[in-house]
Amino acid sequence: MNPFTPKPAESVAALGELKLIASIRRWLGDASPASPFGIGDDCAVLPASSRRQLVTVDPVIYQNHFDDTVSARAAGEKLLKRNLSDIAAMGGRPRAAVIALALDPTVRTRWLADFYRGLAAAARRHGVPIVGGDVAQHTGGLVATLTLIGEASARVLTRHGASAGDWIYVTGTLGGSILGHHHRFTPRLAEGKWLASRREVRSLLDLSDGLAKDVQALAPAGTVPALEGASIPISPAALQCARRSGRPPLHHALEDGEDYELLFTVSARADLGAFEAAWKRKFKTRLTRIGRFSRKPAAGDIDLKAFHGYEHLR
Amino acid sequence: MNPFTPKPAESVAALGELKLIASIRRWLGDASPASPFGIGDDCAVLPASSRRQLVTVDPVIYQNHFDDTVSARAAGEKLLKRNLSDIAAMGGRPRAAVIALALDPTVRTRWLADFYRGLAAAARRHGVPIVGGDVAQHTGGLVATLTLIGEASARVLTRHGASAGDWIYVTGTLGGSILGHHHRFTPRLAEGKWLASRREVRSLLDLSDGLAKDVQALAPAGTVPALEGASIPISPAALQCARRSGRPPLHHALEDGEDYELLFTVSARADLGAFEAAWKRKFKTRLTRIGRFSRKPAAGDIDLKAFHGYEHLR
Repeated sequence: MNPFTPKPAESVAALGELKLIASIRRWLGDASPASPFGIGDDCAVLPASSRRQLVTVDPVIYQNHFDDTVSARAAGEKLLKRNLSDIAAMGGRPRAAVIALALDPTVRTRWLADFYRGLAAAARRHGVPIVGGDVAQHTGGLVATLTLIGEASARVLTRHGASAGDWIYVTGTLGGSILGHHHRFTPRLAEGKWLASRREVRSLLDLSDGLAKDVQALAPAGTVPALEGASIPISPAALQCARRSGRPPLHHALEDGEDYELLFTVSARADLGAFEAAWKRKFKTRLTRIGRFSRKPAAGDIDLKAFHGYEHLR
Repeated sequence: MNPFTPKPAESVAALGELKLIASIRRWLGDASPASPFGIGDDCAVLPASSRRQLVTVDPVIYQNHFDDTVSARAAGEKLLKRNLSDIAAMGGRPRAAVIALALDPTVRTRWLADFYRGLAAAARRHGVPIVGGDVAQHTGGLVATLTLIGEASARVLTRHGASAGDWIYVTGTLGGSILGHHHRFTPRLAEGKWLASRREVRSLLDLSDGLAKDVQALAPAGTVPALEGASIPISPAALQCARRSGRPPLHHALEDGEDYELLFTVSARADLGAFEAAWKRKFKTRLTRIGRFSRKPAAGDIDLKAFHGYEHLR
């Protein structure tokens, strides 16, 4: 649905600011706790925690992260899930979110109601209260920015723990997310938390800009990612995109972006069989070993320099 | 300065995403600590704290919170200070901030550099590290959203502690902020923290939408704000605006918004003389008692229904 309406009576401007904020609280329902823990004061108040805190921020912007082919509900869900994926990528658990909405007065009230209901549904599913926010006028635009606060596990898995020789793993399948996965994905929270508890796992991130680009962020100094083309898990959507584009499915898996799968490294000294067996006992999520970080490129490796990741400023 | 440029070579698109992010880290300088506490991983990691945490989010949007008459540097400072004012309004202290930037590819690199340098200067002045962020494409727009995490004092001052008969105080002077105060103000952090330590102070907020509108948020059920017109501290800028608009200066002080002053209540049973003397020993900031919450309107009170606060959706 197009978020904007030419009919003033159907727009948020007709509602006005105070009624809009009251409506937002109603749309969020029990996903939004009472003040001062929730919406209604100058800040939200979070209980003290003995754990280190995680903070991440990601927006959804009309015509960038969603368009008229994506339902308002799905756009709202995506806003939270993008951020949940970042918490998963540090092995943490989400605690609370705040949302800043910048919107044109001609945004359709019904669109916004569905957007917040989608956000609330995802928030309830993942146990994340929406504790605060801001609404501001933005002529001609529609930007919703969510900040998610999380709690770290005893161990925080960063991007910088791998050594030369370490193995590279990925969850799920890759590519073609534009066909729907970019808003239908499930953030890998349970998997991320479990990975943080496993000593043989050394570094972790979530794939947002495509494997070819993102894998570089885990590469230890003086190494290159040695990935085997045949081992990359290609999604059915990547096969579908390949039929349309005429490019090999592997290229879609390497470049498309918005996979929201976990990419992580396992120590070269680890018992891979035991690790993979433990994963299978715990999760149905597909796990694939796709290569390792080596000191020199080898003949069979994918030439990553030939691929581009998602470029945020085109 | 206009944030956009018609010359592609001077735009952030020419820089590209990776160089832009590297530039942002350079512009922020030591206001941005090293990863994982700072920019560079999927989340920022904050040390554990035994205090309750405060969270607030506010954007600056081009053509709403700033325009071409405001320097890029001042717009960057304003982004942090708006949020600092919310932390002050709960009596807390700021800990760390994350910033999400949504921008058109034609944004001028030099404008953005000055914006981040302004943000960094304010961050250093207030000891608030910028620990993370996001950059995303937003065709035709420029929205910067900052989320600020703070630490509560032993006591959190909300909007909901006043009783009938309690006194109403305001810091500074009000009105006419459009002439420059809206970006030149100093957030009242020290004052807010001190107020939270004083038992006779019962509720607190920061004035953003104008006194006439915001004072209602502190009103206990069954009371009305009884404000004396002669006691409202009117700013020199409100006098200047009044000369231009032909309206009384008091109207500007009640309606203009973006004062970023503290509005708070003191118990009806408090020793006002002792309280005001303690304030004067501690602060040079002007403090004015402007009325109280009474059960019935009296003849001399300002008729607040005749005034509108700032309406966020026009």
